[in-house]
Amino acid sequence: MDTRAVLEKLKSGEISVDEAEGYLRRQPFDDMGFAKLDTHREIRTGFPEVVFCEGKPDIYLIKIFERLEEDGQPIFATRATIRQYELLKAFVQGLEYDRVSRIISRRKREEASELIGQVTVVSGGTADIPVAEEAAQTAEFFGTKVERVYDVGVSGLHRLLSTLDTVQNANCVIAVAGMEGALASVVGGLVKNPVIAVPTSVGYGASMNGLSALLTMINSCANGIAVVNIDNGYGAGYIATQINRLAVRNSAK
Amino acid sequence: MDTRAVLEKLKSGEISVDEAEGYLRRQPFDDMGFAKLDTHREIRTGFPEVVFCEGKPDIYLIKIFERLEEDGQPIFATRATIRQYELLKAFVQGLEYDRVSRIISRRKREEASELIGQVTVVSGGTADIPVAEEAAQTAEFFGTKVERVYDVGVSGLHRLLSTLDTVQNANCVIAVAGMEGALASVVGGLVKNPVIAVPTSVGYGASMNGLSALLTMINSCANGIAVVNIDNGYGAGYIATQINRLAVRNSAK
Amino acid sequence: MDTRAVLEKLKSGEISVDEAEGYLRRQPFDDMGFAKLDTHREIRTGFPEVVFCEGKPDIYLIKIFERLEEDGQPIFATRATIRQYELLKAFVQGLEYDRVSRIISRRKREEASELIGQVTVVSGGTADIPVAEEAAQTAEFFGTKVERVYDVGVSGLHRLLSTLDTVQNANCVIAVAGMEGALASVVGGLVKNPVIAVPTSVGYGASMNGLSALLTMINSCANGIAVVNIDNGYGAGYIATQINRLAVRNSAK
Amino acid sequence: MDTRAVLEKLKSGEISVDEAEGYLRRQPFDDMGFAKLDTHREIRTGFPEVVFCEGKPDIYLIKIFERLEEDGQPIFATRATIRQYELLKAFVQGLEYDRVSRIISRRKREEASELIGQVTVVSGGTADIPVAEEAAQTAEFFGTKVERVYDVGVSGLHRLLSTLDTVQNANCVIAVAGMEGALASVVGGLVKNPVIAVPTSVGYGASMNGLSALLTMINSCANGIAVVNIDNGYGAGYIATQINRLAVRNSAK
Amino acid sequence: MDTRAVLEKLKSGEISVDEAEGYLRRQPFDDMGFAKLDTHREIRTGFPEVVFCEGKPDIYLIKIFERLEEDGQPIFATRATIRQYELLKAFVQGLEYDRVSRIISRRKREEASELIGQVTVVSGGTADIPVAEEAAQTAEFFGTKVERVYDVGVSGLHRLLSTLDTVQNANCVIAVAGMEGALASVVGGLVKNPVIAVPTSVGYGASMNGLSALLTMINSCANGIAVVNIDNGYGAGYIATQINRLAVRNSAK
Amino acid sequence: MDTRAVLEKLKSGEISVDEAEGYLRRQPFDDMGFAKLDTHREIRTGFPEVVFCEGKPDIYLIKIFERLEEDGQPIFATRATIRQYELLKAFVQGLEYDRVSRIISRRKREEASELIGQVTVVSGGTADIPVAEEAAQTAEFFGTKVERVYDVGVSGLHRLLSTLDTVQNANCVIAVAGMEGALASVVGGLVKNPVIAVPTSVGYGASMNGLSALLTMINSCANGIAVVNIDNGYGAGYIATQINRLAVRNSAK
Amino acid sequence: MDTRAVLEKLKSGEISVDEAEGYLRRQPFDDMGFAKLDTHREIRTGFPEVVFCEGKPDIYLIKIFERLEEDGQPIFATRATIRQYELLKAFVQGLEYDRVSRIISRRKREEASELIGQVTVVSGGTADIPVAEEAAQTAEFFGTKVERVYDVGVSGLHRLLSTLDTVQNANCVIAVAGMEGALASVVGGLVKNPVIAVPTSVGYGASMNGLSALLTMINSCANGIAVVNIDNGYGAGYIATQINRLAVRNSAK
Amino acid sequence: MDTRAVLEKLKSGEISVDEAEGYLRRQPFDDMGFAKLDTHREIRTGFPEVVFCEGKPDIYLIKIFERLEEDGQPIFATRATIRQYELLKAFVQGLEYDRVSRIISRRKREEASELIGQVTVVSGGTADIPVAEEAAQTAEFFGTKVERVYDVGVSGLHRLLSTLDTVQNANCVIAVAGMEGALASVVGGLVKNPVIAVPTSVGYGASMNGLSALLTMINSCANGIAVVNIDNGYGAGYIATQINRLAVRNSAK
Repeated sequence: MDTRAVLEKLKSGEISVDEAEGYLRRQPFDDMGFAKLDTHREIRTGFPEVVFCEGKPDIYLIKIFERLEEDGQPIFATRATIRQYELLKAFVQGLEYDRVSRIISRRKREEASELIGQVTVVSGGTADIPVAEEAAQTAEFFGTKVERVYDVGVSGLHRLLSTLDTVQNANCVIAVAGMEGALASVVGGLVKNPVIAVPTSVGYGASMNGLSALLTMINSCANGIAVVNIDNGYGAGYIATQINRLAVRNSAK
Repeated sequence: MDTRAVLEKLKSGEISVDEAEGYLRRQPFDDMGFAKLDTHREIRTGFPEVVFCEGKPDIYLIKIFERLEEDGQPIFATRATIRQYELLKAFVQGLEYDRVSRIISRRKREEASELIGQVTVVSGGTADIPVAEEAAQTAEFFGTKVERVYDVGVSGLHRLLSTLDTVQNANCVIAVAGMEGALASVVGGLVKNPVIAVPTSVGYGASMNGLSALLTMINSCANGIAVVNIDNGYGAGYIATQINRLAVRNSAK
Repeated sequence: MDTRAVLEKLKSGEISVDEAEGYLRRQPFDDMGFAKLDTHREIRTGFPEVVFCEGKPDIYLIKIFERLEEDGQPIFATRATIRQYELLKAFVQGLEYDRVSRIISRRKREEASELIGQVTVVSGGTADIPVAEEAAQTAEFFGTKVERVYDVGVSGLHRLLSTLDTVQNANCVIAVAGMEGALASVVGGLVKNPVIAVPTSVGYGASMNGLSALLTMINSCANGIAVVNIDNGYGAGYIATQINRLAVRNSAK
Repeated sequence: MDTRAVLEKLKSGEISVDEAEGYLRRQPFDDMGFAKLDTHREIRTGFPEVVFCEGKPDIYLIKIFERLEEDGQPIFATRATIRQYELLKAFVQGLEYDRVSRIISRRKREEASELIGQVTVVSGGTADIPVAEEAAQTAEFFGTKVERVYDVGVSGLHRLLSTLDTVQNANCVIAVAGMEGALASVVGGLVKNPVIAVPTSVGYGASMNGLSALLTMINSCANGIAVVNIDNGYGAGYIATQINRLAVRNSAK
Repeated sequence: MDTRAVLEKLKSGEISVDEAEGYLRRQPFDDMGFAKLDTHREIRTGFPEVVFCEGKPDIYLIKIFERLEEDGQPIFATRATIRQYELLKAFVQGLEYDRVSRIISRRKREEASELIGQVTVVSGGTADIPVAEEAAQTAEFFGTKVERVYDVGVSGLHRLLSTLDTVQNANCVIAVAGMEGALASVVGGLVKNPVIAVPTSVGYGASMNGLSALLTMINSCANGIAVVNIDNGYGAGYIATQINRLAVRNSAK
Repeated sequence: MDTRAVLEKLKSGEISVDEAEGYLRRQPFDDMGFAKLDTHREIRTGFPEVVFCEGKPDIYLIKIFERLEEDGQPIFATRATIRQYELLKAFVQGLEYDRVSRIISRRKREEASELIGQVTVVSGGTADIPVAEEAAQTAEFFGTKVERVYDVGVSGLHRLLSTLDTVQNANCVIAVAGMEGALASVVGGLVKNPVIAVPTSVGYGASMNGLSALLTMINSCANGIAVVNIDNGYGAGYIATQINRLAVRNSAK
Repeated sequence: MDTRAVLEKLKSGEISVDEAEGYLRRQPFDDMGFAKLDTHREIRTGFPEVVFCEGKPDIYLIKIFERLEEDGQPIFATRATIRQYELLKAFVQGLEYDRVSRIISRRKREEASELIGQVTVVSGGTADIPVAEEAAQTAEFFGTKVERVYDVGVSGLHRLLSTLDTVQNANCVIAVAGMEGALASVVGGLVKNPVIAVPTSVGYGASMNGLSALLTMINSCANGIAVVNIDNGYGAGYIATQINRLAVRNSAK
Repeated sequence: MDTRAVLEKLKSGEISVDEAEGYLRRQPFDDMGFAKLDTHREIRTGFPEVVFCEGKPDIYLIKIFERLEEDGQPIFATRATIRQYELLKAFVQGLEYDRVSRIISRRKREEASELIGQVTVVSGGTADIPVAEEAAQTAEFFGTKVERVYDVGVSGLHRLLSTLDTVQNANCVIAVAGMEGALASVVGGLVKNPVIAVPTSVGYGASMNGLSALLTMINSCANGIAVVNIDNGYGAGYIATQINRLAVRNSAK
């Protein structure tokens, strides 16, 4: 019931002033005390709730998983340790854990036929794959068709150039790289659609846990690049999905 | 002529090995010695060449403007000082200068009827307007319809909430803010389409010329936010245009 | 005995020059060699001594706890590990440990009827709760009535707005947030009393262990916000108590 | 008219649904396009609008000053250059400029008899006085009685100790210091009421324009200290006024 | 006369103990009080003395130039302002000033036939040319044959690839780039000889005056890259000359 | 087969257009999915593939080692833990592990007679030896003759000066130092050939894990110094080999 | 009159309680409102008051100079601009200005015969001389005999070694250097008495206005080095004087 | 044998040219390959060799300890873990370990009667004691009489003031403090002899492992303060000993 609907009902006497005031303040979330689960989220935004596991106390995680199960919602949780997975699967049936991306999920990965559009995830080195997979699987969880192009760091351009079609055909490219993070600039120069750059904490010494790669990407001389937080594969998968949906859904009009 | 076309012509004898090699290496740019102007750019990417004036020696700027004029290309130049404008208008006819956005241009701003889709530029304070205008005018130069919502900093939420429709209807929101840069997170929580966040160097003390705002935006707890460089209104206008085109053009299919 | 009292007694011959000199230099603390316990503290300032456990060697902690017990003082110790608690309860009776806030205490939490005024603790995410609880329990230990409003991050403004009364009625609001720390600015724009902002080390990547949130809060565009150290729930609870006392106690005049 | 009042009137038929909806969305500000002046601010919060001049284009400043004059509001503007003052006084009558604090104002400083409570501004060195004065005059503009204790840096403790009463009697102390910023910790150890610490950009070399002083104050080992941005005298005067009002006004209940 | 020669002469009675001690301590420089000019430098190292003008007081610069002239040495001075040049040419005949590289020199640039080997200077953008020219002209001054490949930033890879031979044939490549500095990594992946990377202060916002480019280059994932200071074209020209000499001179053995 | 050769064959009918296109796009690497092993690398660049072990998942490491063994390639892997070595030797025969340099290798260290030229590795303190050895053994693996001069920190100059010949005779000096990293500057002033400086993370407090040493080396007042990443012994050994080869191989012409 | 003396006089009736209290609180400084001049300073500490001119408003400077003149005190003021000097000499007779060190003084430099002990000031480059002179002249003003050894940067060790006696004979060495600041470590390894290191802001790029040199010096591997702020020649001259006095004055016992 | 002595002997025929050259180059250290032990150090400088244990491989530590024992030298080793101690005492007799300061030693602490002069070590909090003890015991090992004044942080000035004599009578004060590090400034204002400030890594949040305290101390507004590295108690004990010796030994002349 939106504001106008409430007001109409008040006017017509269907509800009282008190009820109207209550509706206007009603919380579109499920208050668990320590957390306010946004259970209407998928209906409102088209994106179901995702659980970020890092640093959450066990007891809170268990309660959140149980609530999601009760509500019959899909489960998708990022940054989970193997220990958290072992714990949670004792409480909720059917969980799966992917050691590379560190994702716990229960909804089957969509069949390729159900996934729409195209997002291409490009990554620099083998060590960047966990973040790249977090991005790729997040996008897939949200219904996006994903292509993967891994280990195409800029020190061997021929590897990247050999996969040019896959990169150029995407509605959005996610460029994942650590160390110096130059991959985003090179990719940005090769495509006409947006590039979401994800710096990773891969590297050593002056990489400063990804800060150097972040700075590289923010300062990119190429156009059409925007950056998310270090190791934030989830965030990149999310925004890439938003862009991909704009491209695909509108095309059905 | 793409690689395959060259090869086909070589096979058929239309061109020689030397010619083929030449084509394969030919430079899709105009080498001016100090610069390599990308004159085919608009044809290839749909985005005409834009000149970044800051720090360019006068003599180079003049030559670039003259070349663009010769080629009959539109002129759009960012980060120009009034002094640069005074100089350049002596060499090229019909230039206009906008003191707020510091843009020199010659192509008339598109009529609203010619502009497509919708990008909304939201800014935090009066001092952020120059960067917001750089973003807005860049997007308009590239053919995007732009709505402006200015001075809606998070310390007075009612100002932002009063313009909610304009913000929520955009294919892409550009959120421009200095100081603590919290605007991006708040906007991110209100819309379902992507937000491109632009930190500005507005502020003092620990704002560190925009670095604080950049960090705020990169660490945003909201989904669907990606960040460009400090004061990079141009970059935000560019990527917002890419997203807006995906939404609009595909919808014509 | 203050300076003037000492001088009067010296003048009147009640004490000798040597005694006077001694009084003037006397230490209002209990010198334990490795520490100088401020045992008169509560009388002088209204705030009993609180023990900061992090990094203190076991042997020092034990001696401090034993001394506090001997002196019949209340015990309240922050940043304690479960290991420290296990150790200390073997030496001092009746200690309790709260795993969320990591506080060891012996004085029962005040009954609501004994607590005065109102401080509201607002926190951004579930992972910020330990710091929020350190702030809340510290304020309660010092006699303040505390309201808790948790998981109201700025990416879902409706959650915060639904609790507006609790936030606006406080004599002082403590805003606890990690990641980008934008909560303080939003709260600051909604209330007329002071906001004490506590950045937390919650986050990853460019959050730099809370430094980003600290910078956000220090640069806030909202009025009436001042900031304490990262994760310093204790410090926020302390200064909020000072403010709350000014509001309440004076009102009894 | 608050939400309930609107609903009551709608119920009683005094206003229509459309009117009610309008009221609920109405903007409690004056939209000037480039700025949204909060003209009801003093009524709502007890703090009149203050203009921050730094970086604002001349044309915007003039319009804001003219609007404030039209509305018969007091004028108080911080961070103004002498050039801005010369410009503005050609448009608005009766402006005064204080070269030390860089404040333009039109409302006479309150008579001591009208000012309430006590805030003491303590500063470290002669070069910190401009920031200290911005804090002091801001608090006075908001109706606070202010005591000034200047040039009492920690390298000469006797200077600070000689003014102890003035410091200890304040409802709130504002401690202003550059260089190493140790003044806040020392003051914090001497008083029982809150200390608002203001780092200044005074210093050279590793002072990094006030960042070192900011870090010192944030890390203070003393209790009851919270920090505002570097050189933010205005912010300190504001929050000190909030605290002082809580202490004084409530005491009248 | 080296140590052994001195000892032999002492042994043979050609020189006294005092003379020997004197020789052993003698300064292979010309002590001007404020500076110790290394006049034997070219004989000893093959590199003549070069003057760094930035920040040197006028009076010192004049004396150094006069001394070099007296000694019949070539003059090559970097980081000179036009003002310094105007001043110095009043004292020393035949000086020339290059406004792009900001170099004052008196030795004619070597004819191509006299220059040896090959160093290629690659630069990212037009604004990087001053640093690139400082590198190129320094190397030429030291006798190196230099090829220039400018404006080949990584956002348009085809521009770089079109000049591949010039880059791959060099004994050493100097890669000059600001903003995100990704050029070094891309070049490093294309050549088999060493790359000396020079970050420039070109950029804005988070480029932090070249620090971002420096970090990018230091973290490069490509092999065979080493980095000099921001804007240090001179240093790159120097070490590239050392490498080029090793390649060329030895080849004459 | 280079581009021209492909074109010639196409022209002459030896290969079809499809084959030609295939050749032109063919990947000179072995795509393992998670990694693209550059198996032609040694032929093309003279440097065999080296494995960087840090952070690589076990399963990937095993597959890479097995592939290298299958291909009959030498094995040289840096930054390996003892645990990784224990794991890998169960899959691949004949591996050796050096605990100081943390290198796993299978190719015997070259006999001195097979190694060419001279690179001297100079290190500051005992704790820098692991990085120095990574540099030295990398250079040796690539065929370079290496001299070691260890524990010659600048606080005891006589130790460095006593080994001057070994330092001055090298085609390239690698200077390895942590803490303040001053060694590079001192060495740079003593030699005429290039110095590759390697900052190490040795130190504590304000050494910031090697960042201080990196800054020292980048700012060196000596000529002929270029810097690689913190602890990057491998990178230094690589570029020193490039320089040494230029000096030696060309001398055979 | 110290505390005991006051108490004795009170006891004996020479002074009243009020007088005693007054003495105990009396301020050993001259309160000028904006500054508290420490006029008894030289008597108490042996160091006369020195004026730091940077950033002080003209009106305050004039008043301070006039007061010092009235009191017949020597005048020594650091960090003065030529403009400040021109202004001040109109108010106070006999001032002299040294353009290199930027010091305004009125007390003649002591004759060498009056100066005691030995402090040696060593500096790295010509551009460091202003800071070195501030240190040297400060020490001389305080009565110290100073030797100067300039332009002995570590890239040419022979220059430093040729002056070894002057360096080793000092009671304290002041090492002044910018860029990489390695001079302090090298000097520290050569002497047995304390070294006070002064980083300077000389340099460019990653020197970060002296921060790099500061870090180098703080991390020095040599013993017996302590560091003052960037460009703080005054501070170094002060502490070197303290050390020199300990060495000389005690030796007269 | 110094240079002149060698030359005299050569002249007189006592030694040959070869012998002379050998002497001039002879190493005043014991080359252990991985380390160059400075065995003549105590004779030359008055300070015996001290071993820094942190990060040294076990095998190197054992060899160094054994060599020191063979040479009959005293053993004093800092930053040792309990594990290192357990290991080393199996190889060398009579070692003792102090868990607070983490020092392994074999020379008995000097009797008070043998120690000279006075250095006072002042520390801020209980957690700073390990660093304070490293400083104190180092100074004692080098023959200095040390007074300890612990837990006198600036938030409780009376604690520091109550020990004023002990602080003011020292030839040198070592001020050890973490968190905001303000102690150094306060102590600096109270004494006339030099203060060596030691920042510690004690603190949390924005203390950044001691960097904040370091910056505070470097920026101190008090005179006569110089700073060593974070947690560098050893370095402070060393330089304080140098200063104390100058004061005491010379006084015997």
